[in-house]
Amino acid sequence: MHGLEARAVFMWRFAMKNPLLVPELRAMMEAGDAEALRDFCEVGNSSLVAELVGALSPAEIWQVLRHAPLPLRAEIFSHLELELQVEVIELLGRRDAAQLLAEMSPDDRADLYNDLPEKTREAVLPALAQAEREDIRRLAAYQEDTAGAVMTSDYAFVSEHLTAAQAVDRLREVAPDTETIYYAYVVGENRKLLGLVSLKDLIVARRDAKVGDLMARDLVFARVDEDREEAARKLQQHDLLALPVVDNGGTLVGIITHDDVLDVAEEEATEDFHKGMAIQPLNTTLLRARFGLLYQRRISWLVLLVFVNIFSGAGIAYYEELIESVVALVFFLPLLIDSGGNSGSQAATIVVRSMALGEIKLRDYFRVLFKEVAVAFALGLTMALAVFFLAWWRSGIDVAGVVAISMVAIVFLGSLIGTSLPFILNKLKMDPAAASAPLVTSMADIMGVLIYLTIAQSLLGIVVE
Amino acid sequence: MHGLEARAVFMWRFAMKNPLLVPELRAMMEAGDAEALRDFCEVGNSSLVAELVGALSPAEIWQVLRHAPLPLRAEIFSHLELELQVEVIELLGRRDAAQLLAEMSPDDRADLYNDLPEKTREAVLPALAQAEREDIRRLAAYQEDTAGAVMTSDYAFVSEHLTAAQAVDRLREVAPDTETIYYAYVVGENRKLLGLVSLKDLIVARRDAKVGDLMARDLVFARVDEDREEAARKLQQHDLLALPVVDNGGTLVGIITHDDVLDVAEEEATEDFHKGMAIQPLNTTLLRARFGLLYQRRISWLVLLVFVNIFSGAGIAYYEELIESVVALVFFLPLLIDSGGNSGSQAATIVVRSMALGEIKLRDYFRVLFKEVAVAFALGLTMALAVFFLAWWRSGIDVAGVVAISMVAIVFLGSLIGTSLPFILNKLKMDPAAASAPLVTSMADIMGVLIYLTIAQSLLGIVVE
Repeated sequence: MHGLEARAVFMWRFAMKNPLLVPELRAMMEAGDAEALRDFCEVGNSSLVAELVGALSPAEIWQVLRHAPLPLRAEIFSHLELELQVEVIELLGRRDAAQLLAEMSPDDRADLYNDLPEKTREAVLPALAQAEREDIRRLAAYQEDTAGAVMTSDYAFVSEHLTAAQAVDRLREVAPDTETIYYAYVVGENRKLLGLVSLKDLIVARRDAKVGDLMARDLVFARVDEDREEAARKLQQHDLLALPVVDNGGTLVGIITHDDVLDVAEEEATEDFHKGMAIQPLNTTLLRARFGLLYQRRISWLVLLVFVNIFSGAGIAYYEELIESVVALVFFLPLLIDSGGNSGSQAATIVVRSMALGEIKLRDYFRVLFKEVAVAFALGLTMALAVFFLAWWRSGIDVAGVVAISMVAIVFLGSLIGTSLPFILNKLKMDPAAASAPLVTSMADIMGVLIYLTIAQSLLGIVVE
Repeated sequence: MHGLEARAVFMWRFAMKNPLLVPELRAMMEAGDAEALRDFCEVGNSSLVAELVGALSPAEIWQVLRHAPLPLRAEIFSHLELELQVEVIELLGRRDAAQLLAEMSPDDRADLYNDLPEKTREAVLPALAQAEREDIRRLAAYQEDTAGAVMTSDYAFVSEHLTAAQAVDRLREVAPDTETIYYAYVVGENRKLLGLVSLKDLIVARRDAKVGDLMARDLVFARVDEDREEAARKLQQHDLLALPVVDNGGTLVGIITHDDVLDVAEEEATEDFHKGMAIQPLNTTLLRARFGLLYQRRISWLVLLVFVNIFSGAGIAYYEELIESVVALVFFLPLLIDSGGNSGSQAATIVVRSMALGEIKLRDYFRVLFKEVAVAFALGLTMALAVFFLAWWRSGIDVAGVVAISMVAIVFLGSLIGTSLPFILNKLKMDPAAASAPLVTSMADIMGVLIYLTIAQSLLGIVVE
């Protein structure tokens, strides 16, 4: 395994993510081949190594990682999924765990700390140095979903009085310990945020140019208690590598880097996907989610909607005698109420996603509504046409008329419900994503039953009692 | 407006995105105050300026931008929405348009070019220099949704034979014309990609260290015809600032930068949101989408589903006589079939999103299915319990039994459909996102009608005919 050629073969298989690697790793562990295991950790990109060892059990992961030098070990470890990190930490002695935590980057460490059970926290914390304990406590204190909870405290900062050359020297010194040296924040007394110089600016500038003259002053920044989604949007909109985070006094307390923003955007989108289908946020992957969690996050809305759907049933019950006289009407019921639900869900999804991307605001309601009125009417007409001939052929022209008119009305009103509900929730300071497809569908169903049977009763001229 | 104090007030209002700015801008235009308009363009971050002028008409936007120096003008212009860019270009003379295009970054320029009408392309292209014409043709030739279509050709590259100090000098030289100088790609003959050095590595290294010794050789890269989503995932997984793109011969042809990846991730998520609700991709924002587009992207699935839902109606028609004898059964029909649709849509959404994030693959089907079997059964039982007492109270113990048993079966099978459909589509090399909530709901409906009425018929012992 240690010859150059063997290493090349190993790397090739590694790059191809060859499933043979896992048994090979296990063989190394059994043989206690420390050198081979260290080689494995050092062979490639730390995120690739993490992907591969992620397929092992927590105990095995530690068997591999403990052979890596500490900085690399912490780097690979940070790339593992959070749940897996917790499981590995739980296996470790206090000293090993503290060593690993001390070496991790502050934001990853704070995330892990927040997920550790109380008992483990109490065991590990005293084994850390004073500075790290305070850093953990500070970062862990920010509320989930705020900019503070995503930021890292490893940023580079310089004084405005330095020259470009001095600033580059300073960045060179701090490089090993900071997340990015491509942006340096210019701070005054008490770390008050004054401006920003990029390494690009410093490199291109004259050696003796002053940082104060080079820096950009019109900074985009986030407040520490701002929503992380808001902060992510700022970084994205302005194509930044990192976004500075300040407290209410304007003091620089951390930065959010571009890679964290990608993760935030992805997590938020996943949450919205799930909410859109009446699932409460899972906060984990499908494969890792336990039975109890999946059950719990899905059941509440499902049961609630059962009770909402009773109203559809009640509507039908109210017209029981009408249905008894013209049972043929039931044939078209699923088709009609589903159509209202479908077009309503489409409208809601488009609005909710546009709101999440910040493309539309509350004040755009009427613009959006007017557009939807036209679109919904056209959709309803087309669908009515499609179903009219079917209904004529099957149940005569009378029923066909009822079905077609009902279709237009149901699709039209269903779409208006779907368009309006997210705006209403937003106005009520609730999450517009709660306007889920199942909720919109149930509301459209109730309305659909009432519209269809009311139109049927009046047009077919059936007198019930 | 030009005094320092007035400028400070203006900047403040600017930063607050004061809506008063728009009338003020219009006043400047009317007065023909070129200096004030240039000041405005130079006052802040180019993305902020773009956001503000984005509220003006295309003609007004040009009235403002033409006062800015060309590089800044191109930068602000690039931050406008693509549709707006097209509208502005259409207003310009050939010379102005060509000047603007020549100054834009290659990837933004190629995107814009792809969206221009044929006539405008033909007018503008001859006015450009040879090099730019070729660059546009090359980048515009890559298929949409590939890595090639997202990449830019403004990257920094160095030879492996340079020293660290020489490499930094070279990066300093090319800085004004490249998208990022924080990564430099090390290339051999014919721009064959050999490795990567970061500016951080070069700055920290000894001045006379050789680039060949500093560079990382185990590169993560994308092929030019690779799916852009795939490429975006690589950059994200490995926390990169930029991802090199190579052709099939291993030649470096471009890079994809972190900010482009955020846009890709967002667009892909939006597409999946819409597909999940049976809407074909809009490729524009809700406010910009015209009536015809919205109608067209929503109607096809809606009409298709009308015909699918006929099967539910046919199922009901088949049991017409059963329904005539026990009309009370219809009361529970919406509630039962909606429940199957809801739990099925939940299952489908979780699976589709997990697939989109690369968390699960085709081979995970049985693992996911087994988990869903347990969860779906528990969900069905809970919902059956909820509805049992209602049905007992309303329609007696017989109907309650039928409804409860049907609920378990419908939720169970609906969930299995929802879980399996994305895997089946994936296996058939189709987009799993086509397993939309409306489609799953319609399938669950048909199944629900048949299960419910079959169980009712056998348990209630009603002999039809």
